[in-house]
Amino acid sequence: MTLSKPFVMAACALGALLAAGPAAAQFKDAHEAVEYRHGAFHIMGTHFSRLGAMVNGKVPFDAKAAAANAEMVAQMASLPWAAFTPGSDKDEENTAKPEVWSQPDKFKAAAQKMQDAVVTLNAAAKTGDFDKLKAAFGATGQTCKGCHDDFRKKR
Amino acid sequence: MTLSKPFVMAACALGALLAAGPAAAQFKDAHEAVEYRHGAFHIMGTHFSRLGAMVNGKVPFDAKAAAANAEMVAQMASLPWAAFTPGSDKDEENTAKPEVWSQPDKFKAAAQKMQDAVVTLNAAAKTGDFDKLKAAFGATGQTCKGCHDDFRKKR
Repeated sequence: MTLSKPFVMAACALGALLAAGPAAAQFKDAHEAVEYRHGAFHIMGTHFSRLGAMVNGKVPFDAKAAAANAEMVAQMASLPWAAFTPGSDKDEENTAKPEVWSQPDKFKAAAQKMQDAVVTLNAAAKTGDFDKLKAAFGATGQTCKGCHDDFRKKR
Repeated sequence: MTLSKPFVMAACALGALLAAGPAAAQFKDAHEAVEYRHGAFHIMGTHFSRLGAMVNGKVPFDAKAAAANAEMVAQMASLPWAAFTPGSDKDEENTAKPEVWSQPDKFKAAAQKMQDAVVTLNAAAKTGDFDKLKAAFGATGQTCKGCHDDFRKKR
């Protein structure tokens, strides 16, 4: 089958539109993407800190609250990544290092490491076993720190 | 049974501690509470807007994506309210009107109205029926607008 030039051009234009579609549709602009990822990290951080307060003995261990907090961490863990959109490093509120965009494979691996740890954390919290929670909390915290060291600007 | 004075005092102190506990433990300070609620509203708004783009024909209706977006709106809908902590109206990034704190019952009712609408929205999105989604989206949007008119500062 031979395709006409106009057909091929139209198909290419459609292909480009579809390829651009998801990213363009997801966030209004770079600033919205930054706000979105900061929002997700902030909510995740708040609930992770609440687990930390229990793990570190600052508040009494409450298995139900721990499970709810871990669940919220898990809900948030998949959100930020799509919001590291091209060009959003230029936004005035961006706090990500250029390496996010210059070393995408390394960044993706770090993000995945955190998400994997969070799956374990969520499962551990659901068992109601304090020691399992504590171990998983520590392991997750290491993945947060690793990614922040490599990919977040110093504050 | 007669309770000794030291026992009553200890019990009262414990009661006060328990009552203060949740709010104090939830957020490090007023600014963190503001950041948290803004984060939750922002993520909710982003996913609600994605539903809006489908409802308004700007992007093709995708039942699976609609269900995922409505689910995220539902996940976020219960989060912001605990973060309207006393004193957080003084934070420099606060955008809530004083009425949030001076008319708490009215604010609570408005927040509940939105959460009820979101339950309907989430159920509608899960049916995969575009018309049901559209109706629920409009009804939810009205509850957003109503609360913003009464309780959010003009921007």
